[in-house]
Amino acid sequence: MRVKYKPWAKDYINEKRDFFLQEEDLNNGNPFDNDNPIHLELGMGKGQFIMGLAKQNPEINYIGVELQASAQVMAGKKLEEEPLANVRLYNQDVAKLLEHEFWVGSIDRIYLNFSDPWPKNRHAKRRLTSDRFTPIYDQLLSANGSIHQKTDSKTLFESSIMSLTQNGYEIVDIELDVHASDRPNIITEYEEKFSKKGFTIKFLEAKKRK
Amino acid sequence: MRVKYKPWAKDYINEKRDFFLQEEDLNNGNPFDNDNPIHLELGMGKGQFIMGLAKQNPEINYIGVELQASAQVMAGKKLEEEPLANVRLYNQDVAKLLEHEFWVGSIDRIYLNFSDPWPKNRHAKRRLTSDRFTPIYDQLLSANGSIHQKTDSKTLFESSIMSLTQNGYEIVDIELDVHASDRPNIITEYEEKFSKKGFTIKFLEAKKRK
Repeated sequence: MRVKYKPWAKDYINEKRDFFLQEEDLNNGNPFDNDNPIHLELGMGKGQFIMGLAKQNPEINYIGVELQASAQVMAGKKLEEEPLANVRLYNQDVAKLLEHEFWVGSIDRIYLNFSDPWPKNRHAKRRLTSDRFTPIYDQLLSANGSIHQKTDSKTLFESSIMSLTQNGYEIVDIELDVHASDRPNIITEYEEKFSKKGFTIKFLEAKKRK
Repeated sequence: MRVKYKPWAKDYINEKRDFFLQEEDLNNGNPFDNDNPIHLELGMGKGQFIMGLAKQNPEINYIGVELQASAQVMAGKKLEEEPLANVRLYNQDVAKLLEHEFWVGSIDRIYLNFSDPWPKNRHAKRRLTSDRFTPIYDQLLSANGSIHQKTDSKTLFESSIMSLTQNGYEIVDIELDVHASDRPNIITEYEEKFSKKGFTIKFLEAKKRK
C-alpha cells in the first residue's frame, strides 16, 4: 500500500502504549487481560478490516501486525477516537514474530488480506504464503488454528494453494468469487479499490494437517 | 453430456475388441504390448481430448473410461477410421475399476475433464473428486502419479481443492483461467461449448502426499 511518509510515526508508536505493543509487553506473555482467542492480521495496513472485526466480535482479541509505520499509525489515530479493548497493534516484520515465545501456539487465526502478490517468479519466496513463512505459521497457530486469506491476485492465490498444500496445510474452505457469494465479508481498503476495478476477490481457509 | 441413445452401442462395444477393453483383457494384466506409461481419462465422453493427446504422444498409452455407451461409441467410430495403437476404451463405472488387479499402482496420470459438477450439496459425494472416489485414485496411481482436473464449474473446482487436500493430495499445479494463460491445452467438446459461453476454464494437478 502506498502511504505518505510520516516522520512522526515511529515516535507515535513508541508513545501510544495503550494499543501499540512494545517489545517488553511481549516478553511478559499475553498482552490481553483475558484468555479470549487471539486472531492476528499480518499486514494490517490502516486497519479497516481488523477494527471492523473487533467491533463485531468483542469476545475475540485482535493483534494487527504491520511493518509500515506510516500506514499503521492511521489505525492508531482511529483507536484514539474510538478505543477498542480487544485490539493491539504491533509494528514488526512477520519474519521476526517468533523472537517472542508468547506467540507459539497461541494464535487461533491468521488473516492474510491482500498481501503483496510479488507477481514475479523470482520474488515468489517473498509471498506471505511461501515456504519461507509457513514454518512461522506452524509455530504461531494453535492446534485448531487456521489461516484465512483474501486476495484479488490470481498469481498469489494460485501460488498460495500450491505452497500451503505442499507445506502441511489442507484447504478447508475456499471461494473463488467472494462478492458473488452470500458469505459474510468485511471489506478492506484494498478490496474496495480492486473490486471496483473488476477484480474478483478470492478467499481460502487453510488448516494444519493433523 | 447429453447424447442420443444408440440401441446398437452395447453390441458395438462387445464386438470392437481391437480398441474396446473387455473384462477378460483386464484379467490378463496390461492390455498394451509395451511398458509405456498409462494415462487414464475418467469420463472420456466422445473422446476428443484423449484422441488428441494420443496422437501427440505416441509414447504414452491412453485408456478412456466412460459409462455412457452412446457417447463412447463415437470415439470407437473415430478409431475405426484412424486407428491409434496407444488408445483403449473401457465401458465401465469408475467405482468398479478396482475389480481388476491390473489397475493397482499402474496409472501415471488420471484426467478428470469437465466431470459432472453435481452442484447441489446433497449430491457432493457423487463428484469425481469426493472422498468416495479418492481412495480409488490412491490405488490406481503409481508413486509419482497425479490427477489432472479441468472444469468450468466453480463449485466443482472449489470442492475438488478441499476434498483432494483433505484426502491425502497436495496441489502441485493450478491455473484459474486456462484460456488466459499460455499453457498448452487440448480443448474438449465441453470446453469449447462452455468457454464460448464465457465460463473460465480452471485446471489443477494434484499428487499423493509422500
